[in-house]
Parts: sequence; C-alpha cells; structure tokens
Amino acid sequence: MEPILVVGSVALDTVETPFGRVKNVLGGSATYFSVSASFFVPVRVVAVVGNDFPQKYINQIGKRNIDLRGLMRQKGKTFRWGGRYDYNLNEAHTVFTQLNVFESFVPEIPMDYIDTPYVFLANIDPDLQLDVLGKLKSPRLVACDTMNYWIDSKKQQIKNVLKKVDILLINEAETRQLAEEFNLVKAARRIISWGPKAIIIKRGEHGCIYFGRDSMFAAPSYPLEKVFDPTGAGDSFAGGFAGYLAMKGKLNDNNIRQAIIFGSVMGSFCVERFSLNQLMNITTDEIVKRYCEIKNLTHFGNIRQL
Amino acid sequence: MEPILVVGSVALDTVETPFGRVKNVLGGSATYFSVSASFFVPVRVVAVVGNDFPQKYINQIGKRNIDLRGLMRQKGKTFRWGGRYDYNLNEAHTVFTQLNVFESFVPEIPMDYIDTPYVFLANIDPDLQLDVLGKLKSPRLVACDTMNYWIDSKKQQIKNVLKKVDILLINEAETRQLAEEFNLVKAARRIISWGPKAIIIKRGEHGCIYFGRDSMFAAPSYPLEKVFDPTGAGDSFAGGFAGYLAMKGKLNDNNIRQAIIFGSVMGSFCVERFSLNQLMNITTDEIVKRYCEIKNLTHFGNIRQL
Repeated sequence: MEPILVVGSVALDTVETPFGRVKNVLGGSATYFSVSASFFVPVRVVAVVGNDFPQKYINQIGKRNIDLRGLMRQKGKTFRWGGRYDYNLNEAHTVFTQLNVFESFVPEIPMDYIDTPYVFLANIDPDLQLDVLGKLKSPRLVACDTMNYWIDSKKQQIKNVLKKVDILLINEAETRQLAEEFNLVKAARRIISWGPKAIIIKRGEHGCIYFGRDSMFAAPSYPLEKVFDPTGAGDSFAGGFAGYLAMKGKLNDNNIRQAIIFGSVMGSFCVERFSLNQLMNITTDEIVKRYCEIKNLTHFGNIRQL
Repeated sequence: MEPILVVGSVALDTVETPFGRVKNVLGGSATYFSVSASFFVPVRVVAVVGNDFPQKYINQIGKRNIDLRGLMRQKGKTFRWGGRYDYNLNEAHTVFTQLNVFESFVPEIPMDYIDTPYVFLANIDPDLQLDVLGKLKSPRLVACDTMNYWIDSKKQQIKNVLKKVDILLINEAETRQLAEEFNLVKAARRIISWGPKAIIIKRGEHGCIYFGRDSMFAAPSYPLEKVFDPTGAGDSFAGGFAGYLAMKGKLNDNNIRQAIIFGSVMGSFCVERFSLNQLMNITTDEIVKRYCEIKNLTHFGNIRQL
C-alpha cells in the first residue's frame, strides 16, 4: 500500500460547545487528516509542535499507521486554537489563536518522503504549500485545502498553488469568495479553469458537492442525532477521501465518488465526540457499515418514462 | 388517474432578483403546486382571487390538466406579495404583503371534490387547514406545508393539523422552530411523534431530507448555473412530490424516494425563470431527463469491505 503525505498543523485545542468544554486537547489539520487516512493507507506527517506537546499524544498517534519522523519538535509552545460553537454547530467562533512555533513553520520534508505518491496540503500559508510542492518528486495526486484568511491576503499565491494541484477541497463560503461568484456551479468552473482537475465543496451538515472537468457528484452528510464538536470534520473528510483514493490507486470517476462517501463517513465519526476521541476508537467494520448506511440514505430507483 | 386537490393561494407577485424585476405576475402556492403536479395527475384547485385577477392567467392555468371550479372570484383585490432576493437566493426578503381577498378566505370545497383521494394543504392558516380536512371524505394521502408565521401564532393548531396529516413538508429553519430543537434528526423525530407518518425538510439549494417512521432519504438539489427566481420552488417541489405519489398510488418507500426526486426536479425547473414561465414550458421528456441527471449526480458504487 503506497503512503500519503500530509503537511499541516498539529495543535492543542480548547473547544466549547453547548455539550461541554475541553482544554488543550489534541487537534490540528494534519492530526485529523492523518488519523482518518490511516484507516486506508500508511500516512506520513510533516508538522511542528513545541516542547510543551504532551508525549501521550505522540504515543496515541504513533500507535496508528502514521509515520511521525516529519513531526518537528521546536523550542517554544505548540500552536493553540480556542473555539466556541453555539447550537448552530456549522459556525465556529474563534476565541483565540496562538500560532507559537507554527508562526515560523517551514516544512522540512525528510529525504525518504520526497517521492510520496499522494499528498495533502492542509490549510497552511499558500507560500508554504508551494514550497512543499517544489520539494516533492512528481507526486501522482495532490489535494489541498485553504481558508478565507489566505483568500483575503494571498489570493495570487493560492492561484499559483492551484496550477499544481489536482483537487481543491474548500468550504462553500470560501468557494464563493475565492471565485468572486455566488453561483456555485459557475464558481466551481472558474476555479477549475485556474488549474485543478476538480473541486470538492464542503457544506458541513449539508454534505458536499464535487465538480470535475466532466462529472458532478453530490453527497449528503450522514444525519447524526448527536453532533458533539464539529472541529476537524473537514480534515477528517479529506483524510477519508484522499486515503481511500490512495488505497485504490486509480483516480477514475467511480473511485472518486466512493472516496467522497468515505470522506463523509470519516467526517461524521469525527464530530461525534470531542477531539479525536471517536476517530481513534472506531473500527474498519464501523466505517464500512456507515458507508452502506449512506448508500441506503441516498438510493432511489431508475425511471425510463412517466 | 386519480386527482389531487390543493388548497392554497393564487397571487400576483412582484419580485426583484439580481437578474431582473417582474410586477404582478402569476404566483401563489396553489398555482405553483397545481402546474407542477399537473404533469403527473389531474389537479383540483381551491383558492380565491379578486375581480382584478387577469383572465389570461386563468386561461394559462386552465389549459393544463387543472380543474378551476374551486377557484372563487370575490369582490376586491387579489392577494399580492412583493419580494426581493439578493445574491443569496436562499433568503426571500418580503417587501410587502397585501392579503386582500385572501384575508377572509374560507375554502369552499365543491361537492364533487370532497372524495378526492390525494390532498395538499399549502401554507395557509392551520385553522383553515383543519376546516378543509373536516370537509373531506377520508382522503388516502394528506400532505401539508406551514411557515414561521403560523408557528409563532398558532402552534397548537399546527399540532392539531399534524394529527390528521400523513406528510409534512417544511423548511429547515421552520423545522427547528416548530420542534424547538436544533438537531434535525431529533427535531424530525419529535414532529413525527405528534402524528404525521413522515416529514420532508426542504433545504433550498442544499436539497432535502426525508424522515419516515423507519426510513431516511437525502436528496440534493440539482446544481443550476442559472437560478433566476426562487419564488415557488417549495410549492413546485410539493407538486412534483405529491403528483408523482398520486400517479403511482402506492405509498411505499420506493415510490416516496422517487417522488422526492421528482419534487426536486420540479423545484429546479421552477427557479430557472420568473413566475411560472419555465414550469409552463417544459415537457415530460425534460422532466424525465433531469430525473436521470439527478440519478447520475448521486450515484456511487457499493462496498463490501475495505
């Protein structure tokens, strides 16, 4: 099984939702992505933590099929994020952001990572995403994420990244902002014209929609009775999506559609408990079971005529 | 083919969107529902208009498979609604509401309508919905709509209606408001516990989700490059949904799922032009074609194991 490389953040999160509060728990885009993708293929992580980062978290991640040689430990404090959600769990309110060692993060790619065939560039500075791509040896598939902060401040750099990326994963509001177009079909077409082969627009509890050069696919989110904490759902989605694609190898329409459903499955597990508590505890059988539940949720019969 | 009865409004709409403006055009919940459902079964309308209502609109509706003997013409002006949409076409801003003859509307059911087997109670005063149900002779299927205004002012009456209704069609925010519960799965369960067999939660461009007693189904909206005017989309959805179910006769899970997709198809045509201009001009072949496009949009393969 060929591995996937993720470059992103490993963080300590303090999160408050209507259902509880946790302090300095394991978080970060690279963490959620890795744990999620590790159900499908071996994962390689490039990220940075401070010398305050608890060894128990390293041990938890390391127990999985995740290679942490690219996780640098630097003098200083780990990136910390504080967030709050109201009953509308679709919207995160940032309480604080302490970049700490993440502020001066320059991804160092270990020598035997450079020919990793599958790559996910999580939501980091697009200049760093470009830097990473320059260091890699012709990967087979590159997917990336971005966010409103970079769209505001470094739009041209994002466009430069997109020239070298196969699939962009991005949320709905950010799609509109990036394309400067409200209609999602037009917005997706515009972004694809800048370079990527495809775009996956994440809509939180409303599922996601995929636009390729000549294919469209819409997937619902799995309706959950208990959404505990939405933090990390997008990166868990990306992990399931890219992990499954890496496992299958071939990037055809059929595999992409199935990969999107696995993304949806992993996102739905993520939000059921705080931090990575649910993702760390599920089994492959549970993943397949939820996949089948989404299949049943969306199935309807063919029609020839009225 | 057995007919379907709709009780609702016939209105003159003045609508402004970023793409244009129309004044005193044909609108109203019963109108959108009827035209949409008339592609599937004969429709019977109970509604009221004023003596200012243009004969040309009557002629346009009457050309279809729609029985207008229940459309009363009263002294006074027709119900008029003025609305505005920004680029976020999901949200209507009401500019004015002139109830006119609709204010004192008491639905009169023509004698040979009372045993109509399929019934849709569009968004009218729940007291009137109850009154209509009292006048009908054991219909096979009753579906209804409601809105925030009635949830605010007549919640107990809505609950009384729901005791006698099979399927509630309602939008997402109103579901949360009616159930007093943010989580949609819990909200749907709570509403179903009040009486209806099922609830369809309409999410605009995010599609819809169906909750039955032991089945769930999620459908996307058809991604459109041109959304011109969302007015009437919900009632067109209801028309396609209830019309197809009436056409099929049997209310099994398979038919309900297909009916929801036909609802989605009709809603998507509705928004492509102002007023009923698009719905009045499509063909059965185009309806079937779009159904197949939604099938392709949502299809993905089965998985046995990872």
